[in-house]
Amino acid sequence: MFFASDNWAGAHPAINERLMKESTRFAAAYGTSELDKSIEQKFNEIFEREVAVFFVGTGTAANSLALASVARPGGIAFCHSEAHVIEDECGAPVYFSNASRLMPVAGPAGKMLPDNLSAAIRRFPPGSIHQGQPMAVTITQATEVGTVYSLDEIDAISAIAKQHNLPLHMDGARFANALMTLGTNPAEMTWKRGVDILSFGATKNGCWCAEAIVYMDPKMAKDLPFMRKRSAQLFSKTRFIAAQFDAYFKDGLWLALAGHANAMANRLRTGIEASNSARLAWSTQSNELFVVLQKETALAAKQQGAHFYDWAVPHDMAEPVQENETLIRLVTSFATSETDVDSFLAICGAA
Amino acid sequence: MFFASDNWAGAHPAINERLMKESTRFAAAYGTSELDKSIEQKFNEIFEREVAVFFVGTGTAANSLALASVARPGGIAFCHSEAHVIEDECGAPVYFSNASRLMPVAGPAGKMLPDNLSAAIRRFPPGSIHQGQPMAVTITQATEVGTVYSLDEIDAISAIAKQHNLPLHMDGARFANALMTLGTNPAEMTWKRGVDILSFGATKNGCWCAEAIVYMDPKMAKDLPFMRKRSAQLFSKTRFIAAQFDAYFKDGLWLALAGHANAMANRLRTGIEASNSARLAWSTQSNELFVVLQKETALAAKQQGAHFYDWAVPHDMAEPVQENETLIRLVTSFATSETDVDSFLAICGAA
Amino acid sequence: MFFASDNWAGAHPAINERLMKESTRFAAAYGTSELDKSIEQKFNEIFEREVAVFFVGTGTAANSLALASVARPGGIAFCHSEAHVIEDECGAPVYFSNASRLMPVAGPAGKMLPDNLSAAIRRFPPGSIHQGQPMAVTITQATEVGTVYSLDEIDAISAIAKQHNLPLHMDGARFANALMTLGTNPAEMTWKRGVDILSFGATKNGCWCAEAIVYMDPKMAKDLPFMRKRSAQLFSKTRFIAAQFDAYFKDGLWLALAGHANAMANRLRTGIEASNSARLAWSTQSNELFVVLQKETALAAKQQGAHFYDWAVPHDMAEPVQENETLIRLVTSFATSETDVDSFLAICGAA
Amino acid sequence: MFFASDNWAGAHPAINERLMKESTRFAAAYGTSELDKSIEQKFNEIFEREVAVFFVGTGTAANSLALASVARPGGIAFCHSEAHVIEDECGAPVYFSNASRLMPVAGPAGKMLPDNLSAAIRRFPPGSIHQGQPMAVTITQATEVGTVYSLDEIDAISAIAKQHNLPLHMDGARFANALMTLGTNPAEMTWKRGVDILSFGATKNGCWCAEAIVYMDPKMAKDLPFMRKRSAQLFSKTRFIAAQFDAYFKDGLWLALAGHANAMANRLRTGIEASNSARLAWSTQSNELFVVLQKETALAAKQQGAHFYDWAVPHDMAEPVQENETLIRLVTSFATSETDVDSFLAICGAA
Repeated sequence: MFFASDNWAGAHPAINERLMKESTRFAAAYGTSELDKSIEQKFNEIFEREVAVFFVGTGTAANSLALASVARPGGIAFCHSEAHVIEDECGAPVYFSNASRLMPVAGPAGKMLPDNLSAAIRRFPPGSIHQGQPMAVTITQATEVGTVYSLDEIDAISAIAKQHNLPLHMDGARFANALMTLGTNPAEMTWKRGVDILSFGATKNGCWCAEAIVYMDPKMAKDLPFMRKRSAQLFSKTRFIAAQFDAYFKDGLWLALAGHANAMANRLRTGIEASNSARLAWSTQSNELFVVLQKETALAAKQQGAHFYDWAVPHDMAEPVQENETLIRLVTSFATSETDVDSFLAICGAA
Repeated sequence: MFFASDNWAGAHPAINERLMKESTRFAAAYGTSELDKSIEQKFNEIFEREVAVFFVGTGTAANSLALASVARPGGIAFCHSEAHVIEDECGAPVYFSNASRLMPVAGPAGKMLPDNLSAAIRRFPPGSIHQGQPMAVTITQATEVGTVYSLDEIDAISAIAKQHNLPLHMDGARFANALMTLGTNPAEMTWKRGVDILSFGATKNGCWCAEAIVYMDPKMAKDLPFMRKRSAQLFSKTRFIAAQFDAYFKDGLWLALAGHANAMANRLRTGIEASNSARLAWSTQSNELFVVLQKETALAAKQQGAHFYDWAVPHDMAEPVQENETLIRLVTSFATSETDVDSFLAICGAA
Repeated sequence: MFFASDNWAGAHPAINERLMKESTRFAAAYGTSELDKSIEQKFNEIFEREVAVFFVGTGTAANSLALASVARPGGIAFCHSEAHVIEDECGAPVYFSNASRLMPVAGPAGKMLPDNLSAAIRRFPPGSIHQGQPMAVTITQATEVGTVYSLDEIDAISAIAKQHNLPLHMDGARFANALMTLGTNPAEMTWKRGVDILSFGATKNGCWCAEAIVYMDPKMAKDLPFMRKRSAQLFSKTRFIAAQFDAYFKDGLWLALAGHANAMANRLRTGIEASNSARLAWSTQSNELFVVLQKETALAAKQQGAHFYDWAVPHDMAEPVQENETLIRLVTSFATSETDVDSFLAICGAA
Repeated sequence: MFFASDNWAGAHPAINERLMKESTRFAAAYGTSELDKSIEQKFNEIFEREVAVFFVGTGTAANSLALASVARPGGIAFCHSEAHVIEDECGAPVYFSNASRLMPVAGPAGKMLPDNLSAAIRRFPPGSIHQGQPMAVTITQATEVGTVYSLDEIDAISAIAKQHNLPLHMDGARFANALMTLGTNPAEMTWKRGVDILSFGATKNGCWCAEAIVYMDPKMAKDLPFMRKRSAQLFSKTRFIAAQFDAYFKDGLWLALAGHANAMANRLRTGIEASNSARLAWSTQSNELFVVLQKETALAAKQQGAHFYDWAVPHDMAEPVQENETLIRLVTSFATSETDVDSFLAICGAA
């Protein structure tokens, strides 16, 4: 019963087979092979426009290089106060962007509240030499707490960014999960909403290492090749990342995998809601759930082989966590089985 | 006929099979899985001491983080004037080490001449505030031009580094090839010679992406976990790097693969030496050759499908390159076939 | 009526005379002159121990180099949420310390609440690779909002820093003002309380450009000479900074100047307290006051030549600012005259 | 007899008097006072066009921020191999420009040979991801070895920079000395030759601390206010730098001071040329001379109170330095007296 994280999963067989096939050939290195080029073309199709694509090794690299590419001296990027970029990347976005800073913006359900974003940006009017200058807005889709910005919500954030001439970045570590939740397509969820740069994650959704930075306007990416190399993110055998994407996109595999992960989360959700000994801490829409369990139930689950993380209790929960309860996070993935879900629910008395 | 670079090769079947096996399991992320731990242990065995090992995605990352970990304000790292760190990494070692600088040291055959190294270091005596302070010496083994430092030559460099209390780093992008050339073992070629930090490369020798930074004294690596994460080099599914190393080390595969690459280079070398229409530009010992060809021969080879790079003619060649000649580089790998070697030699009139 | 900031004042005549005298001589450059050395010795006397002293050009340089000298990869420095380092230095401390981050800690009256500091540090336990590692605690004395940490309050902060093995830095842009408020001496307010590094400011108190970084343990400063030079803060004619300090320390001038500034603040304070048309926004102890005025009074003051800054109204004021009121900041300095104070009070109806 | 460096001199009385006058006033801080603005206007007049001016504290700051403002990822700035930026600033230009690198270009007499510069730039063609991309050319006027680029020589360098779309920076630590040597004016020696950014030094020529970065096209400087603040180079009482420039420019004082320094160098030069026991190591044109002395003469001079630096003997001197000889550097300044010059010449047997 593996619910610790979607990055605990392995790789999907189709990804592996494509890698194995690629491994028997010689091909040009450093992103110049025909396969690399064809996958870049594939991204154009998926996003319904000519984009610039850069493969990198980690989501942190994608986020950090994306922000670095729009950094300004004394720059400030605005993100949700619980965003991965500010909480979980050891300062990498600051480091890559030559000491630009991240400014946390509060909002319920892991999403920046537009009014809070506006207020935060307005603290840095033009010429505020001592404070710094805004350089970007970044949102996470799906968010760190399992929620998903609706298209309207993205529009609202985007309008504020545009008003201040700020590029809008989307951390899409769980891009496919959000896409399936909203039932929309990549173009609609990104540039049609005003997203300029996307961290396109595939590792959590069935690849073993495949991340990309996507620029909706290739002109914005003019220096990225040098930035990527200087940051040690230009792989010599980069075609092996390309090969993963090849299988990932083929016949809509990526959407099917995300759909499965979401379905498993829904199965958990439905079970928990029916349970007497567990409840949802808050509403989520993608492949993450936050659940309040009896402490003894959580212990029993662990003893029976369930893997999950305990989660810090937020201050603003609607229904407080009691003394005998605990808050946990459950994450599903392409590899989560119905059997595991049902076993876990059984432990929760929700079978 | 693929002689462009050893990173044009794919991956060895044993590496792939191990990856595929790993892909079906769940396991803890970010380097904490049992497989990660067991491979770290394997490095201890290979180096005959307790070392600290950090998996990263590229050789540039390994070199840059290694130098960053010993950086000092105003620091200078000394390297050969043609070293990969100074010529081919887009300034990454400078970038990672907070603007420390690389100082080129001349020497024949791609190797620093000890006297030149001593003179270069002495230009920065203690307290030379305006100039900066030495922070490291770094050598490449095998070198960029196909040569290999003998153990005595490493000793000579190491003695100078120690005299100035400088850590010695080895860029081992082609570590296994050098090992096979010298017929020695990892401990002898590294810490027994005074090497403190090693960039251990496996990508060029049959993996698709497997590099490691090895600290001979784990205490030197105390901040490396944070540096690696901050540099976006901590992979979530890092066990897939570990899996490659698992297969790489099993039954001495890595040495066999390097031995094959070296043997193919020797076969080329022997053929060229016997040829009337080609000659070796200089003596090499590992899996790289530099060859002076008739321009028309080079053209013919390309037309018949041979891949190789033209090389800039150095100023100090013993026998000058004539008007009708060209200098090329040939690199062999684990995947080079005898057939390809012989086909190429036939074109050179050396079959 | 100049109450905008203490850095609107010029320089004290004694400082100027000393500079003029120095200007007629030749002397060794880059901090190596006899005068430089003698002033370093003077710092030893003032701090009652052997300290390491580095002259720099701005308070931002002092703070930023101080934090940079104790930076760790992924490092976090903890400061009050309104501290100058986090609010007013355009990210310089982040920039100088290779992308270390500043973490705001809340507390009333511009001072970190010890419990909040403890909680903030505990969020980064050893090995929290994804979050980062604590590297320093920094306090401002006097604070940005005119208050002063008592010796006991410094002890409380210091104890927490020591418990986590973190160096304690003090931003002493208004060091002398705080000293006079507390009626104590430099040793008592710094190393006897556990302060490791001090930004010693003299510019605001009568010099035109004289700042110093003081290390209570010279061993901590081993790399500072290189850091200062690399950061372009090593002046060639550094003895002109030394000359300012020479006059500044002579016959206790610095304490007299700060005493005057504080006395002028007290005179303002007493007058405001007696006024019907103005009140203190909160209690302050050094040379800054925050005053709630009738809007029309503020306007009248400006029209009659008073210089001061409007101030953003904090959320947690005991007595709210009304619609017809405004919050302003008044800063006194060595150059503030009783006449100006009394003129301002007259406008406030408090003469 | 002070010939060690022009930064051993103090400050000119007119500079001091202006500072003293300024010190009695209150004025707005951080470069916003009327005096600051009026001096910016003065720069426009001196350069005969609207320029953007930024006061900073050191020449290293001016050079480093100038290069930082045109930095590109993986960037390379080309300079003479003996330039101050590459030899004497502890890596500051690399540090400020986010790890851009400096590439040394050889040339006789401290000046880049245009052919060498062309060749150096051509090593980095567009798209040379692994090597990096050119970002700037920087020349020193007057050079580190006492020579001066003629206007034609600047044209030749500038033409190459323009051909590659590279901004041209001039390190003018001894700008006034060069101007007087060439008998030209600021506009002719800078933007009319294609110079885009100038480090305008006044410290060595009679100020105690006054340096400026001058952008010939203000649009290039759009981010400089933030860069300067972030680099801790925005002084609070910046008007004291402005005041120095005020006196410096008044009635052509700056040119008179440089003229005097040059005249003193000429007097030394004439004397040395007439001497039997000393000779000029190479021809110089500004306020620096390099002299080959008998070792015993040098010793005698030191014993009689002469201050000067021994200089490393270059490899390519026309007339070698003999066993019993030594190479020294002599620098004159606004404060050098005829008496000191004549005393020194007397020691050299050239009175």
